[in-house]
Amino acid sequence: MEKKPLILVTNDDGFTAPGIKALIEVVGEFAELLIIAPDKPQSGMGHAITVNAPLRMYETDYFGKHRAYYSSGTPVDCVKLGMYVLGDRRPDLIVSGVNHGSNVSTNVLYSGTMSAAVEGALEGLPSIGFSLCDHDWAADFEPAKVYIKKIVENTLKNGLEKGVCLNVNIPKLPLDAIKGVRVCRQARAYWDDTFDERIDPLKKKYYWLTGSFHNHDKGREADMVALDEGFITIVPTQYDMTAHHAIGDLNEWDL
Amino acid sequence: MEKKPLILVTNDDGFTAPGIKALIEVVGEFAELLIIAPDKPQSGMGHAITVNAPLRMYETDYFGKHRAYYSSGTPVDCVKLGMYVLGDRRPDLIVSGVNHGSNVSTNVLYSGTMSAAVEGALEGLPSIGFSLCDHDWAADFEPAKVYIKKIVENTLKNGLEKGVCLNVNIPKLPLDAIKGVRVCRQARAYWDDTFDERIDPLKKKYYWLTGSFHNHDKGREADMVALDEGFITIVPTQYDMTAHHAIGDLNEWDL
Repeated sequence: MEKKPLILVTNDDGFTAPGIKALIEVVGEFAELLIIAPDKPQSGMGHAITVNAPLRMYETDYFGKHRAYYSSGTPVDCVKLGMYVLGDRRPDLIVSGVNHGSNVSTNVLYSGTMSAAVEGALEGLPSIGFSLCDHDWAADFEPAKVYIKKIVENTLKNGLEKGVCLNVNIPKLPLDAIKGVRVCRQARAYWDDTFDERIDPLKKKYYWLTGSFHNHDKGREADMVALDEGFITIVPTQYDMTAHHAIGDLNEWDL
Repeated sequence: MEKKPLILVTNDDGFTAPGIKALIEVVGEFAELLIIAPDKPQSGMGHAITVNAPLRMYETDYFGKHRAYYSSGTPVDCVKLGMYVLGDRRPDLIVSGVNHGSNVSTNVLYSGTMSAAVEGALEGLPSIGFSLCDHDWAADFEPAKVYIKKIVENTLKNGLEKGVCLNVNIPKLPLDAIKGVRVCRQARAYWDDTFDERIDPLKKKYYWLTGSFHNHDKGREADMVALDEGFITIVPTQYDMTAHHAIGDLNEWDL
């Protein structure tokens, strides 16, 4: 019998989120799984790691036959724990999600879901972050699952260039309304941040971060545009943040 | 009298860290400051934002004549609070640090110091993260201050391309041993992560993330190499994480 691929599964909404269950239903059909996910919602944690506190990790039978753990750490901590504490063999793939809500454009920086995938890329492993554009806990993941299967199968078959992971966003649409898959670049869209200022019972101020997301980047290949048109978007993502084009100018400075 | 530039100052080691004091001593000489920094160490917080809890923010006279606040938030939260709650005018520059410890190479992803600068870039503002390669709280910031002044003055004079910020790392050397400044790219270096597994008084396991950082990227223009040679390194940094070179291959997939 051929050995099944080993897939490390994590997310940022916490191990009890319906999104990770949907992802496990897809990849659990043909792979051996190692599930290690946060014990609580970790949205917006970006590439945070826990360096000022120790981490907890516990095994759970929450996912039936699949080997599974939850941890007090961030999504990136979970990948590291999975690789360096739990892993007896190196995973063939890391998948993260399915996130409840979009992670297009610059949200790749804020997203714990995508940071887990980027951490996988740093490890030199093929990695994919999946997000469904629906914040509802009762979201319908069935259309997403059809495409997640295709994308995972293609990734296992074709591989990914070392250091590259995938940012996959899936529109909130029934299966027959999804127009297909478009490979995109990160749109140059921005948060217009606002803070909701409130007064606590002791008369002191506190602030909720809120805001709205705007896209003025109308290119056909921008992920937000394709998603709005009804496509599933795949943005190949890497971790070299050097602004190579700016090096020349800086060499002219008087330093 | 010419209006002084407004500089927003933050860090990730917390507002009582010596590093931010050193930075304030430099930029406070010629700029109006708005200081908004975390109330506690936030190392390794990456681009995390606080979405599941409200934020606190208090004014402090800790920095004498300079307008200053501390917040329960992450470094990126602090930038957002400074821009959208405290800011009556748009800053001319955002500076973050001086971090106690290096932020070279892929550490740009994990670093709260650099994520604050990247957030500035997302805002379209010139932004700089400064790090001194010395974790000691009693580190000597005097040599660093000489170069921080030069780099800030050059940035205010020349500007930065929109969406670009600077990652500046300063070696732990006396002033006359620093060889100068080299504009670099992010080295392809990696963490070899390990977890220090311990047993608590209740006999349960917990884990400290630790590890060592390795660089096999020997290019003269790699930041870790230049820093090791005694140069101050400047890596121009941007937030498009698209792996543009991988788009072609992905378009061949059967999706």
